[in-house]
Amino acid sequence: MYPSGILQYIPFFYIIWSDNLVTASELNVIQSAINIDESLSSEEKKQLQSWLNPKQPPANNELKLWKNIVSNSGVKLIETETYPLTSFSQKVVCEYFEMCPFNDSLKHIEINLGIQPNHYNHLFDVEVVHEITSNYYDANEIDTILKGNNATVVDAFREVIKDDIFKWDIHRNKEEFREVVLHQTKFLAQKGYGALAYPEAYGGAGDMEGYAHMFENMMFVDGSLTIKFGVQVGLFGGSIQKLGTKKHHDQYLSDAGDASLLGCFAMTETGHGSNVRGVKTTATYNKETDSIVIHTPGKNDNKEYIGNALHSTMASVFAQLIVNGKNEGVHAVLVPLRDSNHELFNGIKVEDNGYKLGLNGVDNGKIWFNQVSVPRENLLNKYGTIDDDGSYHSDIKNPSKRFFTMLGTLVGGRICVARAGLGGAKMALTVAIKHALKRRQFNDSIKIQEDLLMDYPSHQLRLTPLVASAYVYHVTLDKMMTDYCDESKPDKRVVETQVAGLKSIITWYANDTIQECREACGGKGYLIENRIADLKGDVDIFTTFEGDNTVLLLLAAKGVLSDFKAEFNSAGFSSVLKLIGSQLSDKLTTINPIYSNKVDKEHLYNPKFHAHALDYRTRRLTYTLAMRIRGYIKKGMPSYQAFMKVQTHLLALGKAYAAELAYLTYADFVSEMPEGKNKILFEQLGTLHALSEIRKDAEWYLEQGYIGGVKSKAIRQRVERLCTELRPHIEVLVDGFGIPASCLSAPIAKS
Amino acid sequence: MYPSGILQYIPFFYIIWSDNLVTASELNVIQSAINIDESLSSEEKKQLQSWLNPKQPPANNELKLWKNIVSNSGVKLIETETYPLTSFSQKVVCEYFEMCPFNDSLKHIEINLGIQPNHYNHLFDVEVVHEITSNYYDANEIDTILKGNNATVVDAFREVIKDDIFKWDIHRNKEEFREVVLHQTKFLAQKGYGALAYPEAYGGAGDMEGYAHMFENMMFVDGSLTIKFGVQVGLFGGSIQKLGTKKHHDQYLSDAGDASLLGCFAMTETGHGSNVRGVKTTATYNKETDSIVIHTPGKNDNKEYIGNALHSTMASVFAQLIVNGKNEGVHAVLVPLRDSNHELFNGIKVEDNGYKLGLNGVDNGKIWFNQVSVPRENLLNKYGTIDDDGSYHSDIKNPSKRFFTMLGTLVGGRICVARAGLGGAKMALTVAIKHALKRRQFNDSIKIQEDLLMDYPSHQLRLTPLVASAYVYHVTLDKMMTDYCDESKPDKRVVETQVAGLKSIITWYANDTIQECREACGGKGYLIENRIADLKGDVDIFTTFEGDNTVLLLLAAKGVLSDFKAEFNSAGFSSVLKLIGSQLSDKLTTINPIYSNKVDKEHLYNPKFHAHALDYRTRRLTYTLAMRIRGYIKKGMPSYQAFMKVQTHLLALGKAYAAELAYLTYADFVSEMPEGKNKILFEQLGTLHALSEIRKDAEWYLEQGYIGGVKSKAIRQRVERLCTELRPHIEVLVDGFGIPASCLSAPIAKS
Repeated sequence: MYPSGILQYIPFFYIIWSDNLVTASELNVIQSAINIDESLSSEEKKQLQSWLNPKQPPANNELKLWKNIVSNSGVKLIETETYPLTSFSQKVVCEYFEMCPFNDSLKHIEINLGIQPNHYNHLFDVEVVHEITSNYYDANEIDTILKGNNATVVDAFREVIKDDIFKWDIHRNKEEFREVVLHQTKFLAQKGYGALAYPEAYGGAGDMEGYAHMFENMMFVDGSLTIKFGVQVGLFGGSIQKLGTKKHHDQYLSDAGDASLLGCFAMTETGHGSNVRGVKTTATYNKETDSIVIHTPGKNDNKEYIGNALHSTMASVFAQLIVNGKNEGVHAVLVPLRDSNHELFNGIKVEDNGYKLGLNGVDNGKIWFNQVSVPRENLLNKYGTIDDDGSYHSDIKNPSKRFFTMLGTLVGGRICVARAGLGGAKMALTVAIKHALKRRQFNDSIKIQEDLLMDYPSHQLRLTPLVASAYVYHVTLDKMMTDYCDESKPDKRVVETQVAGLKSIITWYANDTIQECREACGGKGYLIENRIADLKGDVDIFTTFEGDNTVLLLLAAKGVLSDFKAEFNSAGFSSVLKLIGSQLSDKLTTINPIYSNKVDKEHLYNPKFHAHALDYRTRRLTYTLAMRIRGYIKKGMPSYQAFMKVQTHLLALGKAYAAELAYLTYADFVSEMPEGKNKILFEQLGTLHALSEIRKDAEWYLEQGYIGGVKSKAIRQRVERLCTELRPHIEVLVDGFGIPASCLSAPIAKS
Repeated sequence: MYPSGILQYIPFFYIIWSDNLVTASELNVIQSAINIDESLSSEEKKQLQSWLNPKQPPANNELKLWKNIVSNSGVKLIETETYPLTSFSQKVVCEYFEMCPFNDSLKHIEINLGIQPNHYNHLFDVEVVHEITSNYYDANEIDTILKGNNATVVDAFREVIKDDIFKWDIHRNKEEFREVVLHQTKFLAQKGYGALAYPEAYGGAGDMEGYAHMFENMMFVDGSLTIKFGVQVGLFGGSIQKLGTKKHHDQYLSDAGDASLLGCFAMTETGHGSNVRGVKTTATYNKETDSIVIHTPGKNDNKEYIGNALHSTMASVFAQLIVNGKNEGVHAVLVPLRDSNHELFNGIKVEDNGYKLGLNGVDNGKIWFNQVSVPRENLLNKYGTIDDDGSYHSDIKNPSKRFFTMLGTLVGGRICVARAGLGGAKMALTVAIKHALKRRQFNDSIKIQEDLLMDYPSHQLRLTPLVASAYVYHVTLDKMMTDYCDESKPDKRVVETQVAGLKSIITWYANDTIQECREACGGKGYLIENRIADLKGDVDIFTTFEGDNTVLLLLAAKGVLSDFKAEFNSAGFSSVLKLIGSQLSDKLTTINPIYSNKVDKEHLYNPKFHAHALDYRTRRLTYTLAMRIRGYIKKGMPSYQAFMKVQTHLLALGKAYAAELAYLTYADFVSEMPEGKNKILFEQLGTLHALSEIRKDAEWYLEQGYIGGVKSKAIRQRVERLCTELRPHIEVLVDGFGIPASCLSAPIAKS
């Protein structure tokens, strides 16, 4: 038997060597702890140091001997202790020597290596007193951090949605479901939530940031409610607020906010989805009658997929405005649809879009106009108006710029869609993780208790990085809304590009997450009662509406290429080409081979490495893309065709840019957090997210020589390791999303 | 102006250099064509050769000049011509010289480079006479190849499903939907399709391969029908066929096949899904009454998610068989559930599982048994019986082996699930591609016609590899069923492992494909009427039922590790460990740097390269996995824990093995095809699939040094290029799936 000085290190050494838990660089931590351990004789120190040579690890027989010493002690490993491994070692020494010194050097090692019971409890043949979840962190504190400045709005809203009318239920019949959702929408609107982002004069609080938070929380109740609510107050009301002038505000905005005036947003046409500029509906000014005539020219030119179409009494219709025979481009016009008996006015036809994959509580419909006349005042005329003398006038002379300015006002809605997707992902993660902390499956023998799903490495790996990303995207979307609302920065081209990219990657993330959660819950996830199925159907379309993700990524990439100088949404390429022609220079330095194979923990966990890698990708893709386009153009290829040729490259750039932006925004936020354990937790989440992102594009980084094979493997191992490290806190991390208990109706999420 | 000899080459040279369409190695083709071109003087040859130096490409000004010559000719490019580029060149010469020689050397270049109009039509500023689809291939011929030996069954079945009762409709109410599906199931069963795989003596044709094809085709009608039908005849009937003996066959099999006896397959329990061996339901033999008592011991031990539970009059119940106080392991027992008035018998409780994400036409339910007594004869006793003297007897002494033999009989069902997933993917691809060949969106100007979605490179890239994979998996699943049915090979351990892996990757492929198609159709894909939404909901659960994909991949990996000597489904690791201990040797040769950077077309398109790459991955993963496990075991880690530690590695191996198997099976099939254009097409599809698969794991290949950065990029470019090459044939490729027009009810799929 070893002397007690050595014995106390045996459990540590067994763990370190039997499972390759620490890298060579981390052995230093142990070496220096041993050096300063006063309880050891110099002979003992020498002996211990001899077992720390990475080139000559202890022999297998030695390891087996250590294991037997530990097992024969009969000591239990108690996971809930503050320093479980140090306590365990102490108790082993106790058993053999009847003396129990608590050794700070051991504690020091335990903390600094970041090893925790779920890293090593399987290595001992001893009884383990498990804990399903740790209470080291506090879910309320985390929730408070996430709510930020919006706590008052969010807390109040979470109280409101406890009302019985928000109780989740299955609705298969669309008419019945739509009635429920309409009722819920009015209820919330009348409590002031509809006008939240409107000016105070119209019943609001001018609080767009609070609105976005509330919108995300609404997903915990139901997807259809969220979308219908968004259509009513964000799109219909928002078009009045953003595109209309005071007369429209005075007449309609309060009623839109409290849902006493139900309206829809009639932009998309059957023939024109993503290409809004090409809509065919016409709004022709008739000078004789001083009115505007709305008309659907061809059979596929109807408005399509219009939310709230069956309940609305008014529509904000996007049409080509023709004044004195001249097309002034797309403008929005308010068109009354139905009378006080909810009968359609003459010349208007509405057809139900029927059942959809999800969101069946939203009444989507098609609308046709046959020479429908409305007063001139109904033109939402902030950016272009018809004067009393019947002539068109706009302060923005360039029709293209005018159009993009109008569309730009809708960017807030795009942030909200991303937020709603994020809310859906949080909900699915919460259900799946609570299920995985209850459900047991398999074990080495059918005699003893089966393992929790959450204790399987593959289960940790499939869910934990998704939780980390939810935190990153939450923080990022907050920042976007702040920037969007910042009136000191009127040029919104940068934020438009950013939101286009983020909306795409976050709604795709939301779909992937919900799918992963569905599968992680097995057949239980497939039952409607467990909520994930509905989330899957509802969130699916978020990748398409408010801007198709593919189209948005192309726009984002064009923004990046033009250094944000191009008009966002523009179909042309001139400003991009101008910039490509002038400022093409790759500022990237060559990657040092030492850097590309650096695998120590300090480096891999360093936010500077993450930021550098993500930035390298964006810049490199920008440069090579510009080179390719310039090459095509020089050879005489038309610019439209040149951009077609590089389409997949553009998509990669759009995604890379958004991924970098999200991480940098989050890293900034975390660096501002007060020191303490929560900051450390948020750093860990950021690291897991960043390394997962780099992993996703590992083949590209390898191709570029930015990382070498060894580093690529090390990153993969770190991702797996971080998932294990976060395992004890996984429940607190989802509780930190703050989903009210009343919304967690899924039977599998209940304890 | 150039002399006519040179001029005829100008369109070719412009294309070659303006778009980097050919690699250096392909320039040889042109060089030799020029050398043998008798229409050229040696001076002209010299001039042309000077433009073929990859190190000194023609200057940009030269290219612009060429382009102007071509544009100013005013010649139209007509895509439908047999040699469109050669004809075009000839006509350009005509315009300038009024002589039109047809030059075989040019034709030779055009064929050998494999360039086609959609590679270059955007390079000219000339009018292009487009073709939406090419008729070079014949969809019926392709369909015939895919049907193989099963044409008679498939053709007859496709006629049957034209009946009005299979007309697609929306069913939101589950009770109503279930009635429709029940009616359809009986209709098909009564036409003999239920017994198709049963012996002739019981109304069948012993045609399991035909059954699998028919099963896939059923997905074109509806997912719920497919699954309910499979439960009735494949699971319930199949358990009688495979686990029962002649008395059971005589009494029940014909009735199961024609659905006059409705039954269910009660295996899964709420507490035990994937771990079937641990089911809690007991079947206790009572010697006094010579009967077996079925009992549900605890509240979560009920049978769960049982398809057909509400319509059935009988269940095949899996329970722990206890004879004389001894547990003989899991066996199946036939238990009557309801009387002739469809009233439940005493002691039986059935509860509806309620609404699900999809498959709402299937009546899934929970079943509890409270001391329900059935005669001893009801034990399905092929592998274990209770003799007249009340003692248990089985020819398979090892209880574990007995259990796995029973489960092994269910492998046919797993193949059918993969086939059904494949059918769903084919359906979604057909809808999405037909839509993309109609729908136009954007262009360089709003004045001229917008582009077809299918002509966008990103759209080609998102859909074409999925079409190629459908062909590969179709052929692979055919082969699996042939092997499974091959009675000359009674040991099914290999095929069990193979099917476990393939079921996983194919059902995941199906889900990914359907999702991609949904997004590719935008909002239209979200409407139930366009079918993709239902496919998405229905196929989703295929990743979970008939064996959860993750669990199956772990089993497959264990099979590979043990060289297929382990009992499939076994929880133990002994045979794996035995093999790891004995035969660990990595037979892989080091990769030659020339090989890892070989990027010429001949190499990248060579099936030997694809096979080598996929095989390298499987073998390397096997070796490293074995090394890791052995390392853990040597240090004394319990084997169960060692396998836990390598779980994500096991999953990677399971997938890699299945991916290799699928490609090799397909490549074998293609190599046996008669020479001709269809063989070339199938080779192209195989190449696209293989390169896409290698792309998916590019980061791993790069890490290993198996491919270098240059090769990785070349593979990506080849994937994009192949998608473009297949563009003219994409409609024929989906028509080749043979989906009957009556099933293509989606409005967006109609022309």
